[in-house]
Amino acid sequence: MLRSCMRAAARNLSTAAAVEGKVVLRYFESRGRAQALRYALVDANTNFKDDRISMQNIMSGNWFNMKNNASISGIWGSLPVLEWDNFQLSQTEAISTFLYNKLGHAEQNANDLQLAARSASLTSFAHQDIILLSLQLINIIGTMQNAKPEDLVSAVGQFHARIHGFLPRIENLAKSNGGYLIFEAMDLIAMILGKESFNGFPHCSKFMFTMMERPNIAQYLKSGQRPLYLTGSPVEPTILARVAECRPK
Amino acid sequence: MLRSCMRAAARNLSTAAAVEGKVVLRYFESRGRAQALRYALVDANTNFKDDRISMQNIMSGNWFNMKNNASISGIWGSLPVLEWDNFQLSQTEAISTFLYNKLGHAEQNANDLQLAARSASLTSFAHQDIILLSLQLINIIGTMQNAKPEDLVSAVGQFHARIHGFLPRIENLAKSNGGYLIFEAMDLIAMILGKESFNGFPHCSKFMFTMMERPNIAQYLKSGQRPLYLTGSPVEPTILARVAECRPK
Repeated sequence: MLRSCMRAAARNLSTAAAVEGKVVLRYFESRGRAQALRYALVDANTNFKDDRISMQNIMSGNWFNMKNNASISGIWGSLPVLEWDNFQLSQTEAISTFLYNKLGHAEQNANDLQLAARSASLTSFAHQDIILLSLQLINIIGTMQNAKPEDLVSAVGQFHARIHGFLPRIENLAKSNGGYLIFEAMDLIAMILGKESFNGFPHCSKFMFTMMERPNIAQYLKSGQRPLYLTGSPVEPTILARVAECRPK
Repeated sequence: MLRSCMRAAARNLSTAAAVEGKVVLRYFESRGRAQALRYALVDANTNFKDDRISMQNIMSGNWFNMKNNASISGIWGSLPVLEWDNFQLSQTEAISTFLYNKLGHAEQNANDLQLAARSASLTSFAHQDIILLSLQLINIIGTMQNAKPEDLVSAVGQFHARIHGFLPRIENLAKSNGGYLIFEAMDLIAMILGKESFNGFPHCSKFMFTMMERPNIAQYLKSGQRPLYLTGSPVEPTILARVAECRPK
C-alpha cells in the first residue's frame, strides 16, 4: 500500500476533485480506532467533515442517546462511522477497505485481488494486534491506580514482549509495504514503548519518516488538527508517564 | 450476504469446478477464528484441505517452531492462514474478504462496492465483537479455577449484557443479511448463553435454521468433520457447563 500511497501523492489535487458529495468521518475526540482513517482521507486531500463526539457528551451520558440513534452511530451503535454521500458504514476495517477502493488505491494497484487482500491483512493486523492492544493497555493501566508497581511492570512487560515479537516481521514488510494503519500502529508503539523501539529496525524508521513527510500528512500534523489523546481518558498523559517508568530497561 | 449465499447455493457444483489448483485453510484443531471460513468453503463446495495443527503440537512446544516458519504460519506467525494456489493470506477478516471475491459472492452482488462494504462490516462485527469475545470468555473462565462464584457470575453477566445489547440490532439485520461469520457468532451465543437467547428474535432463529439447512453445510455438520471444541482448552466442556450455571436467570 505504501507504493500505492506514493503514487497517490502525485495526484492529490485531482483526487480531491474526484470526491463529490458529502463525506463525514464520525468518531470521538481521540485518535483511537479512527486516526488511520483520518490519515487516509487527509493524504488523499479529501474534503471531509472530521466529526468528533466530545468528551462532554460521554461524561453527561448523552452518548447513550447517540448510541441508540443509528443516523449518528450506525447499525452497531459504535464509532467510527463513515458517511459517503448517503451511504453509511461502520467498523474500522470495513471502512478502511471501502476507502482503499474509493480513494484510488485499488485502481493504483490495477484492482489486483491479491494486492487488495495483502493490504487488508496488514490493516487487520495493525488494527487488532497493535492499535487495539495499545488502547487496551492504556485503559488497563488507567484502572490500576492502586496497583503494586510489580503488577504495572508485568503488564507493560507483556505488551513489550508481544510488540517485540512483531517488530522483526514488520521490519521485513516495511521494505515495500505499509499503509495508514501500520503508520498509526507504529506511532503508538513509539509513544508507549519509546522511539528507541525502532533501533535496529531501519526500514520501520524510514517508513515512519516517509509517511510523516507526505505533504498533506505533514501539513495536517503541523496544523494541530490531530486529536491530542489516543483514548478518552483525561489523565492519559499521567498514564503514559507511568507506562514509561515501567518499560523494560 | 445471505442473499448472495442463497444464490450461490443454486450453483454449488459449478463453483466447485471453478476453483482450480490447491486451496488450504490452516488453523488449529478447533473452531476458533476459522470456523466461519470453513463454512464459506464448504458451502461453495470448494475442494480444500482443512489443515489442522493438532493440540499435541502445541503441548509439545512444536508450535513455536511452526510459528517461525512463514510457509506454515504466514507473515504474522499466526493462524488462520489461507493458501490459494501459490498465494498465502493471513488474518480472518482479510481471508473472508478474499473468499467473498473468490467464491462468487462479489459477482452475485454485481461487484457493488457498497454491498461488499456492508458484508465486510457485518464480518468485522461478528468476528471482533462476538466471536473473539466468546473465545476470550471461555479462556478467562478456564483460568478462574479457584475464583469465587460471584466473580464467575459477574464475568458471564457482563458477556450476557453485551450480547443482549447487540441482539435487537442483529435481529433487524437478519431479515435480509447474514453471512458465515454471523452464523458462527450466533451459534457461539447459543452455546454460551443458551438457545433461549433467541426467544423474541424470530429472524435470528430463522437465519440460523436457514444456514444449517443449506445442503453442503447440513451434510458437513452431519459428517462430524467440524471440530468438537471452540478453543484449544481440553476442559472446554467443563468450562461451558460452569458458564451455563452462571447465566443470569
